[in-house]
Amino acid sequence: MGYGERELIALVRAMAGEGKGLVLGIGDDCAAFCPEPGRLTLVTSDALVAGVHFDLSWHPAHALGRKAAAVNLSDIAAMGGTPRFALLNLALPTAMANQWLDEFMAGFLAMLGEHGVLLIGGDTVASPHDLMISVTVTGEVAEGEMLSRKGARPGDLIMVSGQLGEAAAGLALCRQGLEGDPRWQPLLMAHLDPAPQVGLGLVLGQSGLVHALQDISDGLATDLAHICAESGVGAVVEAEAIPVSPLLMEAAGVCGHSPLAWALSGGEDYQLLLTVPADKARDLSELLREKTGRELFSVGRIVAGRGVILDEAGQKRDISFQGYEHLKG
Amino acid sequence: MGYGERELIALVRAMAGEGKGLVLGIGDDCAAFCPEPGRLTLVTSDALVAGVHFDLSWHPAHALGRKAAAVNLSDIAAMGGTPRFALLNLALPTAMANQWLDEFMAGFLAMLGEHGVLLIGGDTVASPHDLMISVTVTGEVAEGEMLSRKGARPGDLIMVSGQLGEAAAGLALCRQGLEGDPRWQPLLMAHLDPAPQVGLGLVLGQSGLVHALQDISDGLATDLAHICAESGVGAVVEAEAIPVSPLLMEAAGVCGHSPLAWALSGGEDYQLLLTVPADKARDLSELLREKTGRELFSVGRIVAGRGVILDEAGQKRDISFQGYEHLKG
Repeated sequence: MGYGERELIALVRAMAGEGKGLVLGIGDDCAAFCPEPGRLTLVTSDALVAGVHFDLSWHPAHALGRKAAAVNLSDIAAMGGTPRFALLNLALPTAMANQWLDEFMAGFLAMLGEHGVLLIGGDTVASPHDLMISVTVTGEVAEGEMLSRKGARPGDLIMVSGQLGEAAAGLALCRQGLEGDPRWQPLLMAHLDPAPQVGLGLVLGQSGLVHALQDISDGLATDLAHICAESGVGAVVEAEAIPVSPLLMEAAGVCGHSPLAWALSGGEDYQLLLTVPADKARDLSELLREKTGRELFSVGRIVAGRGVILDEAGQKRDISFQGYEHLKG
Repeated sequence: MGYGERELIALVRAMAGEGKGLVLGIGDDCAAFCPEPGRLTLVTSDALVAGVHFDLSWHPAHALGRKAAAVNLSDIAAMGGTPRFALLNLALPTAMANQWLDEFMAGFLAMLGEHGVLLIGGDTVASPHDLMISVTVTGEVAEGEMLSRKGARPGDLIMVSGQLGEAAAGLALCRQGLEGDPRWQPLLMAHLDPAPQVGLGLVLGQSGLVHALQDISDGLATDLAHICAESGVGAVVEAEAIPVSPLLMEAAGVCGHSPLAWALSGGEDYQLLLTVPADKARDLSELLREKTGRELFSVGRIVAGRGVILDEAGQKRDISFQGYEHLKG
């Protein structure tokens, strides 16, 4: 590897910029920032490992850099927060080329830049075999506008911010060696370069209408189960109401996979999942359309009880936590 | 591996506790905390990889857990800050036993607990081969009390908070299979279970006397070079003034290694390195003795110019950045 640690720090430092509230950036033992008075600080951290969370054989370095940032920005969006600062820990096998690292960093910083987020620290270390990416992102939110997994109540409508299963379909297409086919571009991009819903999360937090919010990272079945567990409620999801695209249906045919399974448990959608009182759902949809041009899709209802029930043309089954889980027993 | 991701989150959540200023802990997309008004937020993140930063064959899981926390607490100490919250990302090879993880977590949480720090988030993922530990710690410091690598001025004395080279000697002893010999216990502990100098850093920050501060993680030669580079000054270190223990001298004989090289570039001392105006050094030493019972050792002087010069009985050579560097070219 051509980069020494100091060269890399200097390189990142030159790219990282300065920003509002930042007191000390890259180049010291800690970064320091001055939180805005009266606002909460949010913090999230995620790890991605080659061969587990991504496959270097089809994932371009630039897109992977964008995604490593995006999955953390999505967690800030899921609180109704504004992302502010990022720290990046990279464990790099010595065989990784400088060009890969340049492209990865360019992608990572581009995604941060699109959301006004500054890279303020981290660590770059060698690794014997595996490429590991660990990202921490901080954000801020007004105290009364923070949304969490708690707060869903019986009678709430369950809504999602976009079509589901796209990233799972994209991954399946990559696994079949179809990543070069432009016909699948939207599905491939959903997997390779997902968009965190930061603007949407902000509007949802400021609306004052939403009871519970989270991002769909492990699939609707698992992420809705988290909301239910944290809120002490149950959920019924209507299979027919789950938004899936015609292109996803087509890909499901090609891959011999169930589109519903992709949508329920494929994971990595990075759309937002929320609950809203039924009598406020229309107001919320209109507000969102007006502020962001985006639609919400109602997929079911919060009920008293426990667990997530799928209603498929009257056939009901429990699908709680039937999503992607990193550590299988 | 027996733990699923949800079981692990539940386990960690049960151990992690609640604390002042914490609004939302483990179990949501982000943690949220309310920074104290008028104080800066500090954040640091470090990655440790098996086979690079530690060796599982001699590093007990409990001590490794303590150390993974300690190296980050040390970065907070190096700003004069008070550590508050931690996030832990673990990438675990599937072959790791549950017992290892239990002991690692117990050690990690014990070190956090000794410093009043709460675990508020993170991620546990599988890894094909390598064990990686990525820790983020936040802290806080009064705006006027934050110390950094900037601020050293010609004429300052350079001081360190303890004997150097101990951890490097401990590592060398472990490599020679001598980790079971109780005679070397202080050196072994310096390597396996270092103590972050949090209380000391706090007193230094509050003293108003210190110009520049950092922790010695990569060795005096490298870490002093960081202070010089950030402050735009040079340094002269007197070889004879560097504090080394009689036990270190003895271990150097056994290992056939230079004690001075260990002290200058062995790394992982996690003692504090500071510069103070020469006419304030006595006041600072007395304050520290009174508040913490600890001694400071003067090892040299900040000068105009660049680089770190070692003066060994009149023989001078540049030792800038001759320390441990993770990514060698």
